[in-house]
Amino acid sequence: MPGPLSLADLSTTNDSDFVAAVGGAYEKSPWVGEVTFKKLKPSASNPIASIAVLHAAMAKIVDLADVDKKLDLINSHPDLAGKAALADSLTEESKEEQSKAGLNSLTEDELARFTKMNDAYKSKFGFVFILAVRNATKTTILKSFEARLKNTRMQEFEQCIAQIHKIAWMRLLTILEPADTGFLTCHVLDTASGKPADDMEIVLERLSGEGQLGVIGSFVTNSDGRLTSGRALTGKDFSVGVYKWTFEVGDYFAKEGAKLAGTPFLTSVPLIFGIDNPEDHYHVPLLCSPYGYSTYRGS
Amino acid sequence: MPGPLSLADLSTTNDSDFVAAVGGAYEKSPWVGEVTFKKLKPSASNPIASIAVLHAAMAKIVDLADVDKKLDLINSHPDLAGKAALADSLTEESKEEQSKAGLNSLTEDELARFTKMNDAYKSKFGFVFILAVRNATKTTILKSFEARLKNTRMQEFEQCIAQIHKIAWMRLLTILEPADTGFLTCHVLDTASGKPADDMEIVLERLSGEGQLGVIGSFVTNSDGRLTSGRALTGKDFSVGVYKWTFEVGDYFAKEGAKLAGTPFLTSVPLIFGIDNPEDHYHVPLLCSPYGYSTYRGS
Amino acid sequence: MPGPLSLADLSTTNDSDFVAAVGGAYEKSPWVGEVTFKKLKPSASNPIASIAVLHAAMAKIVDLADVDKKLDLINSHPDLAGKAALADSLTEESKEEQSKAGLNSLTEDELARFTKMNDAYKSKFGFVFILAVRNATKTTILKSFEARLKNTRMQEFEQCIAQIHKIAWMRLLTILEPADTGFLTCHVLDTASGKPADDMEIVLERLSGEGQLGVIGSFVTNSDGRLTSGRALTGKDFSVGVYKWTFEVGDYFAKEGAKLAGTPFLTSVPLIFGIDNPEDHYHVPLLCSPYGYSTYRGS
Amino acid sequence: MPGPLSLADLSTTNDSDFVAAVGGAYEKSPWVGEVTFKKLKPSASNPIASIAVLHAAMAKIVDLADVDKKLDLINSHPDLAGKAALADSLTEESKEEQSKAGLNSLTEDELARFTKMNDAYKSKFGFVFILAVRNATKTTILKSFEARLKNTRMQEFEQCIAQIHKIAWMRLLTILEPADTGFLTCHVLDTASGKPADDMEIVLERLSGEGQLGVIGSFVTNSDGRLTSGRALTGKDFSVGVYKWTFEVGDYFAKEGAKLAGTPFLTSVPLIFGIDNPEDHYHVPLLCSPYGYSTYRGS
Repeated sequence: MPGPLSLADLSTTNDSDFVAAVGGAYEKSPWVGEVTFKKLKPSASNPIASIAVLHAAMAKIVDLADVDKKLDLINSHPDLAGKAALADSLTEESKEEQSKAGLNSLTEDELARFTKMNDAYKSKFGFVFILAVRNATKTTILKSFEARLKNTRMQEFEQCIAQIHKIAWMRLLTILEPADTGFLTCHVLDTASGKPADDMEIVLERLSGEGQLGVIGSFVTNSDGRLTSGRALTGKDFSVGVYKWTFEVGDYFAKEGAKLAGTPFLTSVPLIFGIDNPEDHYHVPLLCSPYGYSTYRGS
Repeated sequence: MPGPLSLADLSTTNDSDFVAAVGGAYEKSPWVGEVTFKKLKPSASNPIASIAVLHAAMAKIVDLADVDKKLDLINSHPDLAGKAALADSLTEESKEEQSKAGLNSLTEDELARFTKMNDAYKSKFGFVFILAVRNATKTTILKSFEARLKNTRMQEFEQCIAQIHKIAWMRLLTILEPADTGFLTCHVLDTASGKPADDMEIVLERLSGEGQLGVIGSFVTNSDGRLTSGRALTGKDFSVGVYKWTFEVGDYFAKEGAKLAGTPFLTSVPLIFGIDNPEDHYHVPLLCSPYGYSTYRGS
Repeated sequence: MPGPLSLADLSTTNDSDFVAAVGGAYEKSPWVGEVTFKKLKPSASNPIASIAVLHAAMAKIVDLADVDKKLDLINSHPDLAGKAALADSLTEESKEEQSKAGLNSLTEDELARFTKMNDAYKSKFGFVFILAVRNATKTTILKSFEARLKNTRMQEFEQCIAQIHKIAWMRLLTILEPADTGFLTCHVLDTASGKPADDMEIVLERLSGEGQLGVIGSFVTNSDGRLTSGRALTGKDFSVGVYKWTFEVGDYFAKEGAKLAGTPFLTSVPLIFGIDNPEDHYHVPLLCSPYGYSTYRGS
Repeated sequence: MPGPLSLADLSTTNDSDFVAAVGGAYEKSPWVGEVTFKKLKPSASNPIASIAVLHAAMAKIVDLADVDKKLDLINSHPDLAGKAALADSLTEESKEEQSKAGLNSLTEDELARFTKMNDAYKSKFGFVFILAVRNATKTTILKSFEARLKNTRMQEFEQCIAQIHKIAWMRLLTILEPADTGFLTCHVLDTASGKPADDMEIVLERLSGEGQLGVIGSFVTNSDGRLTSGRALTGKDFSVGVYKWTFEVGDYFAKEGAKLAGTPFLTSVPLIFGIDNPEDHYHVPLLCSPYGYSTYRGS
């Protein structure tokens, strides 16, 4: 399998190569790629700036399509852990996605449960259940299944289209080289004293496909509570995946002379977060006191 | 070494046995135990209700002592990683505490650094540096050392007394059986929808002395966002130590049909916290949305 | 106009009186009330427990109706500030709702803007724009209008049904006496010291229809950080409306001897919140340090 | 009374004028100003950069003074609402401070209560009770009084010195023109969707000495959730005082199509905060979802 395609190269292909490259983002629906090419008219002088721009353009075309065309798109997807999977007649993309979620190695019981769900869903709504499963566990999938069976047909129609857009996004990420605009920053604030947390040690790790953590950086906050290096990750190092900060909050407050318990409430604070958009700025800060903290996806 | 003493038994000992049992809480200062016995007059009909009550009584006696007596108390402590340690002439309590912090296995350089710090501290303040080290790392100790050298003598005098109270607390915890009043509760709130998080899976683990995590409970939140079992830990299971919650936030929001990224920002949320007071109620909740969360020591 | 009807009385009416009483909750669609009566079969021995139960039953009937019936329901609503309003041919309910939002006193320009929006919306989606306006300002309505014009038809179809359910809820609240199950509680936590905030003064006010605040209670937190009275509001006093807590955070931290600035960052902390469901438990806590705080709708 | 003195002018005065200008920052203790002048040796080529720098230098001199000198400094302060006040023999500074706190208009009972407190405090600790009262209410003062009477002598000695530093800071602020480095910024984050809150309306008001709010700015957040103007206040407009943000959170979420209650939990969110250091950067953000929010003193 070749490496990912650059946005520059994609922008200079002809329509058929364009569709061959990214048309698969929407299951068995090359028309989405075709119309997108006509709309964007990509070229060396009019390059596609980012995967996000391309995805937004493709998604808009789907959103503007009429109900029947959307219904066809939905039904062009295979059941999760369904007959097509057993018969090994999935598209490459679906095959990889379902296997990453472990749907190709279900027990008899699990398989039966999925079949039952798929049938119940189809008989209620008249179309197939769609869920972006690349990063989902069996538990997550079954929980979503149960919950969504309670929705109305319209809610599910919308939900399926939303899931399809999400699947397309993840497929484009495997095909294309993201624009070099994403990076990760951090900030630690001491909410007990209302000032930036100075000289706090932080470690950043990345979770491998096998679920192993690997250290990719060690940092110390400066007097503004930020990383002396400014950005923790940039460029190619800033890629889709699951990351973990570990903040040495205990050492920091001990140094500050805070009134800590013999066994402090907080010592090392772990923070696990996912990066879905490698072209975006992720600001993942920590607001902490000796007895509590909060964090969020900032920008 | 015998098991911990019950508060009932302690309450029915005579004064000398009382001092023998708990007098060591304050380094080489049996007078604290002696006066405490006279004040509390413990007996079968007037038992000591909790370690907290005993500790408060002992601490008050120290706080009310005059400056010279406090200075003697401070100076009755050995240097951290100092000559006494090398000469193996520490009290049993100090010996155990310093070894738990790894101070009995310092490198040449570390030892030199500690000696330098101890001397600088004593020459500036005229008394020894005191820090409750049972649960501290070398890093924490050295950071505190550096930070506290910047204080005024009075601030350090107060700080040392505070540390001595903390040491006494931890010593009493190793000697006595805590009152059976402590327990751990949890609550998960979905701040995106403003309702309790129903049906979220939570695992509770405990960190062993060797730093290994061991599962001690698996829970699912009820419709009020609380544990169906109410309390996660009670009685003897609720002991001093370091614990870890893992909240399956990703599964919960997937089930709720929240708009999640292909690689969700939050999936499994880990929360590591210490329990210092086994007689107290610890409420350790999670307030979460798909893009952020906060936690704190509640009650 | 008579006082609100009790759930007991509603439960013992015959079908036609039932529909006369609550059928108007869904605009010009008595069928919703009729089917609801058949489903619930209310009686003295089978009373309707709460407005929430009734509303859920009515909403379910709408959700299960087919698309055409839902479309009729949507289109049975008048334009906001539309011809029907000018011609004064609104239902009593719509008339009151639109006037509360100030839509009966628009300037020429505003009227033109609404007309333009209504037409744009109808020409794009083929049905009328619906928004629960009883508590909305012109700004809110116009902002929603602009935002929703960007949605897909399906999204708007769902959005309109959701708004209709909200309108029905608010109409039922004006018709019926809520079950006596709702109450308001508070909790103040000191996140700097990790303990409940003891002895903090709190005032509760209620916003009148004219936007005037009136004190309805003064409280002091107990050692658990809760109101000594437990509940701040219960029964009939706990009604739909806008409320305001004022927490004397500055006095509390001054008393605690916290290191505060000469002009403290926090002094009196105001917290304005709305109560929409008089049958529910609202827990509105404050987590505060001298330099920050957070609050949320708890339960 | 002349306008505030510029740091440039202060830096070029001789020692006696320097002491005349700022020596009063520490009650009846010109020696602090004298030693400070010797240390800083201010001049046109070596100007004092900020009030903070000057205050830190003066505070350090006090901290390094011996216990007796500190005790003299403490005891050079008058009782709060004490005989000196009645006899009108206070320094100008103390007189203004005590009157701002309303201590010059106490009832018989209040006066008696203060006298009782002052006597209890002096008989326990041997020196006078000191509290920076310029921005404190009678309630705050009495609560601090009661709380601090429980401390040890050393704790109170430290507390008094800390209060004296705070008093000096506030006195310097009335004498000198602050450096032009302070400003106010804001950021609004939508924690429900994990993105900056775009197009939210915010109003900034300032509380006058008479407790009246006056609008000083209206803002709208940009796509990064920040003020298009970047800074809300800078230069002379950014002065010591009490300010209020009002965030139109309800309009924002209505526009976002969030599932809001008929009577939304959050509509206009008020946030009252004090600015103590006009030379500093105050970042006062809002993290909000439809059902909760948090804020803090950032930087």
